[in-house]
Amino acid sequence: MALIVHKYGGTSMGSTERIKNVAKRVAKWHAAGHKVAVVPSAMSGETNRLIGLAKEIQEQPDPRELDMIASTGEQVSVGLLSMALRALGLEAVSYAGWQVPIKTDNAYTKARIESIDDQRILADMNAGRVVIITGFQGVDPEGNITTLGRGGSDTSAVAVAAAIKADECLIYTDVDGVYTTDPRVEPNARRLDVVTFEEMLEMASLGSKILQIRSVEFAGKYKVKTRVLSSLTDPLMPLEEEMHSGTLITFEEDNTMEQAVISGIAFNRDEAKITLRGVPDKPGIAFQILGPISEANIDVDMIIQNTSLDGTTDFSFTVHRNEYKKALDVLNTVVQPNIHAKEISGDDKICKVSAVGIGMRSHVGIASLMFRSLSQEGINIQMISTSEIKISVVIDDKYMELAVRALHKAFDLEQV
Amino acid sequence: MALIVHKYGGTSMGSTERIKNVAKRVAKWHAAGHKVAVVPSAMSGETNRLIGLAKEIQEQPDPRELDMIASTGEQVSVGLLSMALRALGLEAVSYAGWQVPIKTDNAYTKARIESIDDQRILADMNAGRVVIITGFQGVDPEGNITTLGRGGSDTSAVAVAAAIKADECLIYTDVDGVYTTDPRVEPNARRLDVVTFEEMLEMASLGSKILQIRSVEFAGKYKVKTRVLSSLTDPLMPLEEEMHSGTLITFEEDNTMEQAVISGIAFNRDEAKITLRGVPDKPGIAFQILGPISEANIDVDMIIQNTSLDGTTDFSFTVHRNEYKKALDVLNTVVQPNIHAKEISGDDKICKVSAVGIGMRSHVGIASLMFRSLSQEGINIQMISTSEIKISVVIDDKYMELAVRALHKAFDLEQV
Repeated sequence: MALIVHKYGGTSMGSTERIKNVAKRVAKWHAAGHKVAVVPSAMSGETNRLIGLAKEIQEQPDPRELDMIASTGEQVSVGLLSMALRALGLEAVSYAGWQVPIKTDNAYTKARIESIDDQRILADMNAGRVVIITGFQGVDPEGNITTLGRGGSDTSAVAVAAAIKADECLIYTDVDGVYTTDPRVEPNARRLDVVTFEEMLEMASLGSKILQIRSVEFAGKYKVKTRVLSSLTDPLMPLEEEMHSGTLITFEEDNTMEQAVISGIAFNRDEAKITLRGVPDKPGIAFQILGPISEANIDVDMIIQNTSLDGTTDFSFTVHRNEYKKALDVLNTVVQPNIHAKEISGDDKICKVSAVGIGMRSHVGIASLMFRSLSQEGINIQMISTSEIKISVVIDDKYMELAVRALHKAFDLEQV
Repeated sequence: MALIVHKYGGTSMGSTERIKNVAKRVAKWHAAGHKVAVVPSAMSGETNRLIGLAKEIQEQPDPRELDMIASTGEQVSVGLLSMALRALGLEAVSYAGWQVPIKTDNAYTKARIESIDDQRILADMNAGRVVIITGFQGVDPEGNITTLGRGGSDTSAVAVAAAIKADECLIYTDVDGVYTTDPRVEPNARRLDVVTFEEMLEMASLGSKILQIRSVEFAGKYKVKTRVLSSLTDPLMPLEEEMHSGTLITFEEDNTMEQAVISGIAFNRDEAKITLRGVPDKPGIAFQILGPISEANIDVDMIIQNTSLDGTTDFSFTVHRNEYKKALDVLNTVVQPNIHAKEISGDDKICKVSAVGIGMRSHVGIASLMFRSLSQEGINIQMISTSEIKISVVIDDKYMELAVRALHKAFDLEQV
């Protein structure tokens, strides 16, 4: 008799047949006495189709009008899923973001949820109805439709779960959980039964595309028990089994068992590295370099500055590969005339590999084990960056698979 | 410096290229100093695609959810058109029905407009913006999305024009006006410069599919000056010429010129005829026959009862062909046990041909001219029905084209 939120991605909603399968799964939970709200994405391909139409009209589509258009994909999905549930004899009702309402700020195409009214949702659920709410969208204070950005339906689902104080938020997706690393790179990768919210956050930000990072932040902020599980299983599989499948994202305080030292190896080959050598080591130099980069709307990930040796220092940072050329341009034309670096160089054939684990906090020697493993494979480390629960290294792109497998083995993450 | 509403149908909005043409036309009106609101339909084929998806899920789609889905086609259209106008450097803003709001009753899939708030629309227009409003849809008192039924965008446009007290409502369509009859049947059909609202109402109800009949009723009730004109002309044609093209629907009191006796010949081959012979001629018999028909949700068009001869009478009526079988069923199973007609027969190979004209009111002899023309062609008249400005006859389906051409000639409607 729990209060449950289900979220289904675009692939799970990809055809009317699949939508009927989603309905069967939801009906199973409902029949077991649970109160269920569902947040579906647009049918796969639909959001791209809509954005494609917009770009045929305007190369840079007006953000308000783009949201007006892009939000319709989810509106179709909720209607179809509601029909599929009614066809099974359930009472169901669909709501667009503005009908709930899900209130956001007015940052079109990347809005943030500010509040969700739980009244309508809970009244329907208490009356025995399955409530189906559009993902990805909301309404701003002036009544304009907004969207949350790509993958925003994850955030919608977790936010709805937080608002109605759901017992659990189930994210059904085309993978069956969170793995110690990508199984396509390391076939021995193991599914984690449990991962902490902080680990998940590092995983998400490092390129594991299972959950949108903002949904993880939301889950952490509001302590929403969230589970990632497969939507490709038989929708009528035993409920008891389904309830314990996938990977549960928990919170440290709930979790008294001993943590593995390292939970997973994440990687990201979307970045490029830029280095300025022989930069005068004086106050304000980092701002002089990164200010113009930020003004050009280029996001920076890792930043490293070495200690000064001879009054000059070396300064390195990474950007998204798509913005590599633009960043070099900015440095050469805007920054260099002021700082007179000895050399500005870059490399877009790099990757970032990270060991993530909450257990790292209380264990020494993780970094040295990591560095030793990579050195044994003859892999040179170009940059290092650490957080409380993560160590990241930048290495040559061509060693990525080798490094992931070596670390996966070094930290004993293989299937048992 | 007029306040103008434009309406564009699905064909005019059929591709991003066509939407750009619509934008050019709207921009031309705006550049001439007019304040313009635009009501576009969904891109052609889109509403059918959405309804198709719904029917794959539920054979009889739930009406509320169907409206949730079907309304998205127009939402995409307004966003795209707004972008196309912005791409031309205009200020434009799109609104869904609920954002205006366009308030309707809660009769999903065939809702009726109850009120339109003009504040937001007029504020934007006065600020120099082109306002683009979804056709076909509204919002009910509980905040559910409703649609107005097929062709509802015409009604939306006329209703918006009434609400903001527009000087004229321009319905851009793929025909260039209202004709004396269908040019596919009579190549000499002539475009009317002016037609009265009452004539247009008869034409629309008789099967001329240029305008949805409810939009004509709305135009009549609120005296909205409405023009039907072509969207296939060069969007940059001289404004002065475009303003006087097509057919203007006027109101008698505005129109002092002498009316032609007959304005047009309309026809309809969607009907079937049912006759009950030898029905006892007593009070309440019409209700005994048509009550059960109406309870079965079957619409009846013409009804004819001849004078009694021998204490019994013959009773005939017409229904839509799709409901012909159902109507016969009701008569045989529900009605006949009570009335004991001598015979119940029907014919679904009929058509209705009508002469329509406001001038008929003050001219005698129209009916006899009509009957003589048909008789000269050897066409037998099966039923006759008249209103103040219309005479309709039911004839054998196979004579339809012949009858239309004969009457078109008899009433001097040819091109000059």
